[in-house]
Parts: sequence; C-alpha cells; structure tokens
Amino acid sequence: MAYNLLKGKRGIIFGALDSNSIAWKVAERAYEEGATFTLTNVPVALRMGETQKLAEKCNTEVIPADATNVEDLEKLIVRSMEVLGGKLDFILHSIGMSPNIRKGKHYSDLDYGFLDKTLDVSALSFHKVMQTAKKLDAINEWGSVLALSYVAAQRTFYGYNDMADAKSLLESIARSFGYIYGREKNVRVNTISQSPTPTTAGSGVKGFDRLLDFSERMSPLGNASADECADYCIVMFSDLTKKVTMQNLFNDGGFSSMGMSLQAMEQYNKGFQLSDDPKHKYD
Amino acid sequence: MAYNLLKGKRGIIFGALDSNSIAWKVAERAYEEGATFTLTNVPVALRMGETQKLAEKCNTEVIPADATNVEDLEKLIVRSMEVLGGKLDFILHSIGMSPNIRKGKHYSDLDYGFLDKTLDVSALSFHKVMQTAKKLDAINEWGSVLALSYVAAQRTFYGYNDMADAKSLLESIARSFGYIYGREKNVRVNTISQSPTPTTAGSGVKGFDRLLDFSERMSPLGNASADECADYCIVMFSDLTKKVTMQNLFNDGGFSSMGMSLQAMEQYNKGFQLSDDPKHKYD
Amino acid sequence: MAYNLLKGKRGIIFGALDSNSIAWKVAERAYEEGATFTLTNVPVALRMGETQKLAEKCNTEVIPADATNVEDLEKLIVRSMEVLGGKLDFILHSIGMSPNIRKGKHYSDLDYGFLDKTLDVSALSFHKVMQTAKKLDAINEWGSVLALSYVAAQRTFYGYNDMADAKSLLESIARSFGYIYGREKNVRVNTISQSPTPTTAGSGVKGFDRLLDFSERMSPLGNASADECADYCIVMFSDLTKKVTMQNLFNDGGFSSMGMSLQAMEQYNKGFQLSDDPKHKYD
Amino acid sequence: MAYNLLKGKRGIIFGALDSNSIAWKVAERAYEEGATFTLTNVPVALRMGETQKLAEKCNTEVIPADATNVEDLEKLIVRSMEVLGGKLDFILHSIGMSPNIRKGKHYSDLDYGFLDKTLDVSALSFHKVMQTAKKLDAINEWGSVLALSYVAAQRTFYGYNDMADAKSLLESIARSFGYIYGREKNVRVNTISQSPTPTTAGSGVKGFDRLLDFSERMSPLGNASADECADYCIVMFSDLTKKVTMQNLFNDGGFSSMGMSLQAMEQYNKGFQLSDDPKHKYD
Repeated sequence: MAYNLLKGKRGIIFGALDSNSIAWKVAERAYEEGATFTLTNVPVALRMGETQKLAEKCNTEVIPADATNVEDLEKLIVRSMEVLGGKLDFILHSIGMSPNIRKGKHYSDLDYGFLDKTLDVSALSFHKVMQTAKKLDAINEWGSVLALSYVAAQRTFYGYNDMADAKSLLESIARSFGYIYGREKNVRVNTISQSPTPTTAGSGVKGFDRLLDFSERMSPLGNASADECADYCIVMFSDLTKKVTMQNLFNDGGFSSMGMSLQAMEQYNKGFQLSDDPKHKYD
Repeated sequence: MAYNLLKGKRGIIFGALDSNSIAWKVAERAYEEGATFTLTNVPVALRMGETQKLAEKCNTEVIPADATNVEDLEKLIVRSMEVLGGKLDFILHSIGMSPNIRKGKHYSDLDYGFLDKTLDVSALSFHKVMQTAKKLDAINEWGSVLALSYVAAQRTFYGYNDMADAKSLLESIARSFGYIYGREKNVRVNTISQSPTPTTAGSGVKGFDRLLDFSERMSPLGNASADECADYCIVMFSDLTKKVTMQNLFNDGGFSSMGMSLQAMEQYNKGFQLSDDPKHKYD
Repeated sequence: MAYNLLKGKRGIIFGALDSNSIAWKVAERAYEEGATFTLTNVPVALRMGETQKLAEKCNTEVIPADATNVEDLEKLIVRSMEVLGGKLDFILHSIGMSPNIRKGKHYSDLDYGFLDKTLDVSALSFHKVMQTAKKLDAINEWGSVLALSYVAAQRTFYGYNDMADAKSLLESIARSFGYIYGREKNVRVNTISQSPTPTTAGSGVKGFDRLLDFSERMSPLGNASADECADYCIVMFSDLTKKVTMQNLFNDGGFSSMGMSLQAMEQYNKGFQLSDDPKHKYD
Repeated sequence: MAYNLLKGKRGIIFGALDSNSIAWKVAERAYEEGATFTLTNVPVALRMGETQKLAEKCNTEVIPADATNVEDLEKLIVRSMEVLGGKLDFILHSIGMSPNIRKGKHYSDLDYGFLDKTLDVSALSFHKVMQTAKKLDAINEWGSVLALSYVAAQRTFYGYNDMADAKSLLESIARSFGYIYGREKNVRVNTISQSPTPTTAGSGVKGFDRLLDFSERMSPLGNASADECADYCIVMFSDLTKKVTMQNLFNDGGFSSMGMSLQAMEQYNKGFQLSDDPKHKYD
C-alpha cells in the first residue's frame, strides 16, 4: 500500500545489489511513494548484481561510484541532481564490508590494512557522502540522510568482528555530522539499527542462520524483514519525522530491549536434555 | 497534508485538555489521516478544558475516565469498542502530573503520598491501560500503543523533580509490557521522548521558559513542536513501523545526542561579560 | 586480602539476611577494610535470618527498621550515629521484594496493591533512606550511597516481572537524588548492577538456574559472585571514587555489553540436535 | 594515601607527557600503590615532555614506541616484561590526537588523511596494543586494560570534531576486544570517560576554558581532576574490580547523567540580562 509520502522528493540510494538487499526494497518503496532517485554502487557490485534491473523498474539510472572516493561522490551527486532536476531530499547509505571477515581473520588477529578498509567502506564513506553533499549544497532544507546499522554497535556478537567497530563509528558519524548538518541546513541524519537480515551480504557471516533464529526468538515481534526496514526508511524520509535527528533507531521487533525471552530460553534449555553436564542432568 | 495513514484504524486518545495539548494535535492529525477514535480524560480536566470541542471537530465522543482506576478503564475501553464498532488499533497515553511539583515540594523533601500519586497517574496508569486492554482482548494484532516521555528519564533536570522518576518508570513499563503484548498479540509499545513543549501543563514548571530556550539552542533542529510530535505519533500508529517496539524514540531536534552546541555555549558565555570572575574578564 | 580502604569510615548496611546475601559479604569486607557500621533489616527478616550472627562477627549491632517507614529510618539513622560515634560515610541499600512474583501474578495480571508494595520496598525506600539521612544531615561530605540493581532495569527478562520496573525506578532515584545530594553535600549516589546471584532471595525466581547458566556463558568473565560484588562496593565506598556519581555500574563479567557469545550460542545450538525443525537438522 | 592495592603488579603506562597528564598521575599513584611499570610515548613526545623525570621518580625506564606501529609495540612489550621480570597485569592507554583539530579543519571539511591519522592514533592503537599483547601472551590472568575516553563518544560537543568519532571507536574496541580477551584469558578491558581535564593536550581545544566551566557547573560534584582519575584507574587495575569488563565508566562528577543543573542554568540565564531579545527582557 502506498501513501504518497515521498511525492516530489529526490534522493540517492546506495547499496542495492539484488532483490534481497534492503536498499533494493527501499528503492521499490520510495518509487511507490512518489519519489525519484538515482541508484549507485561500486562498479564491481554493479557487474555482479542486478541493479540495472531495479533502475528500469524504478524508471531511473544507475551511477557507478566508489563511496570511499570523494571525486566519485562529487560526480554522483552532481549527476544525480541533473538527472532528478533539482537538489536532493534524501540519501540512503546501505554499505558495509569487512575484508577481515571475508578472509577469516579473527578479531584478535586482524590485518590492519583490512581494518582500514572495513572502516573506510562501512563508516567513513558515510562522512564522505555527507561532506561532499554539503559542500555541493546538494540537500534541501529538511532533507533526511539515513544509514543502516546493527545492534553490534552497542553489544558484542561473536563473529561480527571489526564490523561492530565500524557500526559504532558509523553511528558516531551520524551524530557528529547530524549536529553540523542540522544547525546549518536543517538536514537530519539518523541510523536505523535493523534486525539481522538474510541479504546476500548478511548471509555470508558465519553462523548467521543460528543468530537469525536466536534473534527471532528473542524479539517479541520477531525479526524485522527487509521490507519492514524499507517502510521505516520511508517514514524517516517523509515530512512526518522532521525533528528526529542524531538518533539510532532500532527496527528489530524489540530485540535491543530484551535480556532474555521465554521462547529463546526454551530453545536454550533444550540443549541440556542431551548434556552430560551433571549440574543440569535433572532437567 | 494528509496521507490516509490511519484509514480504518480505531483508537483511544488520553489527555487532550486544550488546543496546546500534544494529545489534541494527535487527535486532529489522526482524524485527518482517516482514523476514528474516542477521547478521554479525568472528569476534572474535562470540566476545565475544551475536550468536548475537539470531540465535535473529530466527530467523536468524550468518555470520562480516571486512568488510575481499572474499573473506569474497563468501561472506557468497552464503550470505545462499541462507539467505534470494533477492536482498537492504537492508544495514546499522554498523562502526567506531580502533586509534589504543584505544591512546591523539593525533591529532597517529597511528600510520599504525593509521590505515590505522581507515579500512579504518570506511569502506573500506562500499565493499567494495557493490562485492562489485554484482558478485554481489545487491541487488534499489530496494534500500536504509545506514551509520551521526556529525556529527564535518562538525565537529571533541576526542577523536574519526581516526574523524572515517573518517566523512567513509564519507559520501563513500556519495555516490560511491550515484551508481553508483543509476543502474545503482536502489539507494539513505545514511548516518544518529546522536546519540552509549551502545553498548558508543561508551562507550569518553574523556569520553563529558560529551559525551553536552552533546549532550543542545544538542539540542532530546534525543539520539536506539539504538531511535529503529533506527526511522529501518526507514523508510530501506522503500518509502516510494525516491528518497532519497546523503544524510547526521541523527537527532540537532536537534543538527546548533544553535549554542547555552539549556539547554547554562546548564550552561556554572554553571562561572563557581566561577571566579576577575573578568570573570564577578558572575554 | 585487606587494604584499609575504609579505615575510620562509618556506615549502615541494609539487607543482610544470611551468608548468601550480598549485603552480608559487604559487611564482612567493610569490617576487614576498617569500617564500623550498623546492620538493619525488617523485623521479619531478622527473625528468619542470621543477621545477629553477622553483627557479632563484625562487632556491631542490629537495628530493626522497615525501610519504607520514615519514622523507622529516622530512628535507625539517629541510633546508628550514636552507636558509631559520628556521622555516616556510606550506606548500602540491598533491598528488593515483589509480592507479585511471590504470589505468581503474571506481569499482565498484576495486583496493583502488590505493585505499590514492590515499588515501595524495592525503590522508594531508597529515596526515603536518602531523604531522611539528608534531613538529619547524617552523611559526611564525600560520603557514598549505593543500591544494588540488575540489568533488567534496561532490558526485559521474562519472569523478572515488576521487579524490572522497580529497578528502573531505583536507578532513576539514584540519579535524581544524586544530583541534589551531590551539589549540596558532595555525597555521591550510585547503583551497582550485579550479575544474577544465587542469594536466598534471588534463587526463588522461576527458572533462575537456567538464567544463571545463560548469563554465565554470555559473560566473557562469567557471572560476578556476591564476594566480587562486595569488593566493588568497598571500592565505591572508598576515597578512590570520589567523583563517580549518578552512575549505574555493571559488575557482571561483561554481560551487559554482550549481544551473543560463542559459548552461549553453542549451548543454544545443542537444542537443535533434538529438533524436528528441518531447517536445522543438518547441525 | 596509599593502600598497597597494586603490590606486585606490573604494567605499561602510555601517554605520560608532563605533570599535567593523567597518565603521569596514574604512574605516580601506581608507584605509591606498589606497582612496577614501564613508561612509553612516541619519540617526539619524549623529546618535548618530561617523561624521563617521571621515570626516575618511579624508578623505571622509558621505552619509546609509536603505538600505531605493531613492531614498536612488540619491542615495547617484550622489553617491558624483561625490565619488570614477568608478565603484565595492567596497561593504561592514554593517547589521543587529531590533526584535523590541530590544523583547524572543520568537521564538515575534514582532511581524510588526517582523519585516518586521528582514528589510528586515538583508537586503533588500542586494538594494536591488545592484539600485540595477546599474541605475545603478555598479560596475566585477571589483568586489566584501560583506555581514557570522553562523553563526546555519546553526545556531540561542538569543536570536539573527529575526536568524538575516535572515542566512539575506542569504546567499541574496548567492548569487542574485551569479549575476546575476557573469554580467553580472563583479562578485563574498560574505558574511563573522564571530565574535561586541563592537560597540556586538552587545553589546546578551542573554547576549552568555557567548556570546563560549563562542565563544572553541570556536574553536581564538579569536574573530576586528573588526580581523581588516577585514583579510579588504580581501582580498575586492582583485584577489587575483577568482573568489571567491557564498560565505559564515567568519572565526571555526574555530568553524564545531567540534563540541566541549577548552577549551569543560572550562569546561562545571566546572558539574557544583556540581551536585546525582547522575549527575555523582563528577566
């Protein structure tokens, strides 16, 4: 169902790889809600993914850009304003990547070149996008900038590795730049901290299935889907959330406010039925 | 501007006293967005305020109820379902009152009978509303329950007195009941932590004007108005935020994420021009 | 091992029931560290428990008092100053009780009379202790007041029921009164949020054993024991933490900063070996 | 006053530049408390500062090392174990530097080479220290690792610039590595978030004097001094805080839990006496 929430609004959406991507869903929903926007990703992702298909569906074009490269970002933003016929109202940053995770480097055996890359791609790129946009005066008053985060920014999840630090940095950048962009241009900047989501990127993480299950049982409303995340993004781009800024907004079925749910505990307890652990044999 | 976000939804709105009330604005906006709802308040507030006018405007009726009284709440909810022709989809709890503040009792000289009253009216009433609704099975799946809070739940503001404790308790109840209502009925429960707002109730607090000024200068987007709060409430009642639960959502222009802004510091520094403090004479 | 950290300091310790109590351990450690103090509890606890034994060990006396009763608190504090020969330097509040839990009332079927009792005993008593002490000017400059809390104040644990709300309220009171007592008398007020601890009180909670196991596996250092909590209390009463105030301090082996540990996840996953769930059969 | 809290413990202290440094005070206090340790800093700081004097006072040696350089860190740690005659029990990381601040680059005009430097020096160095120590198995069971942080990691302070992001990253690294180091070696990792402190480094920040004043008036106990920070570090290195890990501990006189104090508001209001702002003329 569509509400015309983004009628007349222009934007840029980073990170739509394929139809599992959250950014993909956001693009579809933004289109339904009346927005026009460009799509962008790094060239290699554009080759592997299906972003072009999405562009056709949304009647727009794909502009390749490496979000860690300021020159690329300048071109992207300038070109986007040309294509869209005016300044921007929203930007979605849905970018994250850890070579340390990909190469199986443990958090206590990080490659520091990789770590720089993780931080640059997953967090500093957000600053670069905003700094470039601001220098080009490319966002209208009361525009809205969003990045996607994860609760690992606050709490440690084994295996999430240096992405946790990248997400913390990302959320800090949202606050720091949100202050500047707010006071000077009334642009708001927030992060949405989303449930673990079985995107093509997310699914690669070791033990992801189990984490998804745990998260599902811990969350009273269950995990939020990519579609539900897209809905929340629409809301944050709309005129109905104009004074919400510098926030990290959990879209997670309640996970972030849970210590232990009955459902997760029941699953946890099942394991003891097999256990030799004498302390728990009686159970 | 209206989007039909609440088309077909039914609700109850607590706490609309007069046209300065946040609840009043929420009612107006909910009506615009296609919702039907009843209004309620304690009898004394109904006599003093103009709730009846609002009811006419929104084509609905006012049902008197003391939100600390379970029997009253039962009647209110049952009658609301009759009037509206079905189960509820949303509830707004906008209720708060401290006899200690009213009577000028300092936080280190509280009257404990008054404190009980503060907590009962401002926080426990939220539990009572939900417990009663749940027992009556009065809220549809994916319904949304909201209460209004303030950042004093996290940080101490001089003069806010025992209302700070009431707001902490309120937010805790939102989490605790949000877990139960989520897992059993997929109902979400959140609080919106709003900028200080010059409502008839709020304005009574000592030094409120100055606090408003400080808050305005600290917040990169300025204080959120009652209208902007109403917009955010609409969003939280809509189907676009279905997996957001057990959260405290700041609608405050960024205040909650600020340590010190340039604008507030400039005002702060002005005072030193008058000062005898030799350390700062030069300024 | 003792360090003389509390040499010459005087205090009151609430809530030492038996040798499993955290307050009991604090008393033993405070004695070792050179403090003098009185012990107190409600009469019924004094009959059931072994507080008198502890008093003998610590060369002090037990003064019965109901911490929800201001008159009792006045007598307690006045008598303590007489016994100890001067004003106080520290107070430990280790009190909590929920009739709703005891009587098996579910959180969505609370008895509101019981809820008032839970809040009064577990949270408001902390305010009463401080307000009474302040009115009697009973605490020396740079004194330290502590209450014990639990992470359920921030996140929902099934079964913890209305104690979660009580702990949120308790922590809020610590901040609110900490502001007043700090600015006026340089007295600091904090809460320690302790791992679940198998005290006589704690063990009564349904499913406590399992929660203890989960918490143990989630916490990289394992659960903090009552002895370790006592050590932390000593530190917070000492002169080495003079500027720490209005804080909630986690003594929990890291639990509060964990999202998911490998150890807990391994236990969680064991349950799937029994499961019919085809998605997880392979595991 | 000394308590023998660190008797027999060995450590490394980073960042003691001159007698205003927090690290300097920690060294003095650690020495008083019976610890042995080495001192380290980058060569340029060693030339400018007076670290050698401190070494003489503490009967130890200075080992130059660039904390962003893994090879330097290896040498430092190996040499420290030789000098001290065994594995380490504690490490203090008191390092931070932003070329963007030094060169007057605004947060919306950052030099990204400088930003990399800020993050590397102020945050990633903490990971490098721990990863190197862990690979060398250089820390005893129940050892304690600390870094110094600032509340700007949570809330934005104008002018603190990219150091805010560095501190967020630093605190995240403390959690992430705290999990690993805890579960594998029972080593705890924490950050202390200290009041603004007039060290040689801190004082350089623009408007630092005023911020110090604001912070002093906001904090019910006033700002924590470098000496008081040193005391807290001693406590965190001692055996009395063994289960405290992955925490950010505020040593700030209550600032972090304040929204607005009476004292700060009074100063804030003074400025209006001069003001032309008609809204506030009456005051």
